[in-house]
Amino acid sequence: MAGIETVLPRWVEDIGASVGVLPTIESRMQFVITLARTNVERHTGGPFGAAVFESGTGRLIGIGINLVEASNYSMAHAEMIAIATAQRAIGHYDLGRGSRACELVTSVEPCVMCLGAIVWSGIRRLICGARGEDACRIGFDEGPKPDDWVGQLQDRRIEVIRDVLGDQARAVLDLYAKGGGHIYNPERS
Amino acid sequence: MAGIETVLPRWVEDIGASVGVLPTIESRMQFVITLARTNVERHTGGPFGAAVFESGTGRLIGIGINLVEASNYSMAHAEMIAIATAQRAIGHYDLGRGSRACELVTSVEPCVMCLGAIVWSGIRRLICGARGEDACRIGFDEGPKPDDWVGQLQDRRIEVIRDVLGDQARAVLDLYAKGGGHIYNPERS
Repeated sequence: MAGIETVLPRWVEDIGASVGVLPTIESRMQFVITLARTNVERHTGGPFGAAVFESGTGRLIGIGINLVEASNYSMAHAEMIAIATAQRAIGHYDLGRGSRACELVTSVEPCVMCLGAIVWSGIRRLICGARGEDACRIGFDEGPKPDDWVGQLQDRRIEVIRDVLGDQARAVLDLYAKGGGHIYNPERS
Repeated sequence: MAGIETVLPRWVEDIGASVGVLPTIESRMQFVITLARTNVERHTGGPFGAAVFESGTGRLIGIGINLVEASNYSMAHAEMIAIATAQRAIGHYDLGRGSRACELVTSVEPCVMCLGAIVWSGIRRLICGARGEDACRIGFDEGPKPDDWVGQLQDRRIEVIRDVLGDQARAVLDLYAKGGGHIYNPERS
């Protein structure tokens, strides 16, 4: 029980290293959808991708894909990995510290766990592709998430932008479902 | 951005290694309160401790303390570390798999992020010491957690037992507050 460790597949590092500055919200969303799609195509995880960018410059700071099955951690959602790699990169647990304003771009709206992680991370803006109900439609679960989650984030001064390239993000969910991808909900026998 | 890693302090490993089977709920709670108190006394993190036990036998499977500041990950709450170390120990992301029934024992009720993590982890029972409002009283925040979170867990067949050695768990929160312990909420300037 010495600790926990999660390693990103090599292809994620390669994609991350090849990215320069992404100036628009749409280009950032396109990037995380590519992560999600590649994760499905390479069979390295679930149909979810996320990244943390410096909002002003569009510089990539953290990168995440769903690694639940690959890592054997149920918390290894794309958003969690993106936030953690960003915090590791800047060397601090508060991504909102000082003058830096960071945003999380995610191919699918967050589940309740990732919603909480967003609040604690110090990010200032959340940008979402597909809706949470799109993930539910193929069998995933958002958990006990408050109905007014967008308002709750806004109350905490976290801006929320939804439905960015939603069709493309939904297409990755459908690709996963059609390919027979595993929907890994816990057993409750 | 090769991955994420969290290392438990040596004293946590030593305490974990010295624990045999803890037969009662109270003895398990006493153990996680000791983790929380030692974390404060050694200045290795916030006033929170958690552990995963096999419910039937009382065997310790995972162990966690709050490591937010030590690890620079805002997600490094005691419950998250306990679940992750348990999943690493059994080599699977679903602690409810097969005939094993695991429980999470936590010195303070979970925040919204940890609530979600509990749902995804496959644990079957949650045992809590201090209330969420006790943590809020010294300046921590539970996040946008649904009011009916206990019912929501029960609906998902996760049993919830509250207020076990609550006074002792609250005393650790007070010890931290009186010692000037840092309440690390993100900046939102």
